[in-house]
Amino acid sequence: MNLDQELREVPLSEETVFEGILINVSHMQVQLPDGRTAPREIVNHKGGAAMVAIDADENIYMVRQHRVAVDEITLEIPAGKLEAYGDDPYESAVRELEEETGLRAENVELLTSAIPTPGYCRELLGIYMATGLSQHEDHLDEDEFLHVVKIPLKEAVARVMSGEFRDAKTIIGILMAWQKLHG
Amino acid sequence: MNLDQELREVPLSEETVFEGILINVSHMQVQLPDGRTAPREIVNHKGGAAMVAIDADENIYMVRQHRVAVDEITLEIPAGKLEAYGDDPYESAVRELEEETGLRAENVELLTSAIPTPGYCRELLGIYMATGLSQHEDHLDEDEFLHVVKIPLKEAVARVMSGEFRDAKTIIGILMAWQKLHG
Repeated sequence: MNLDQELREVPLSEETVFEGILINVSHMQVQLPDGRTAPREIVNHKGGAAMVAIDADENIYMVRQHRVAVDEITLEIPAGKLEAYGDDPYESAVRELEEETGLRAENVELLTSAIPTPGYCRELLGIYMATGLSQHEDHLDEDEFLHVVKIPLKEAVARVMSGEFRDAKTIIGILMAWQKLHG
Repeated sequence: MNLDQELREVPLSEETVFEGILINVSHMQVQLPDGRTAPREIVNHKGGAAMVAIDADENIYMVRQHRVAVDEITLEIPAGKLEAYGDDPYESAVRELEEETGLRAENVELLTSAIPTPGYCRELLGIYMATGLSQHEDHLDEDEFLHVVKIPLKEAVARVMSGEFRDAKTIIGILMAWQKLHG
């Protein structure tokens, strides 16, 4: 589509200005569509994966955990970060579900590959729906502390709509699963 | 709830390790529930605001723009970042809507205050729904380049469900508005 050329920012240079364990930050110079240049700060992140696991009675499994960045105890769908750039989020979602809840699934389908914060971060987040669940043993990472909670999907939708569930991937997973099953 | 004490990570120290224009990064040391310590990388961001604007025929207004971080042309609901820590996202959502689309709204209600990436970022994102729209002049920031597109809300839901609309705030705004109006 030709009109889109009027929108495009052309990267002129990119330089790493912070290297961390979980993220890097780079400074980019871009050429704006009108020819001027502008700076952009970009967070590099390996990406993540999340899973809405739905049992035969249409309950979903959520994990209760403390998020120190926002100093809140949250209820979120099982999720984790990818271990390396280019890792398959499908495998990661399946692994995180089993690690955090002990659940394995017969059927796993991609709901969406979300962009949590396109304005400044390269993270992509694969959000999956799992059905045909069976219970096995969980095996948390040694620095993970969480409780698993089972909630009817319908109640989870209500708790999204009331503003209680605020984690973006959790809202997306719950509402897309609901829309897929009942939309 | 007493059990939640078993989940809590206690911040022991926090040090800024990168200061940018849009974001800062800090290193935190936390005490885990079992007494050990662990490092945490935290992105500090002023927060943002976004608006699903719905007209009398149930069309929504979206902006087509280039996101250089993910090198994609996206369709997103109007949104922007807060100018300072502590700014009111409501005012920012109203301002961004008018700047980007020229629309003013009689009714604005909060859908949710989302946490886009609770694992590593302090950003909160107020997502609002606007109705009772009237058209005025837009006035884009000088480094904003975008096209406004009007789409039926029902079609927007379908384009979320097909995986085409991948921006997290856009998915959340569209599905919460749909659920509110038709759930």
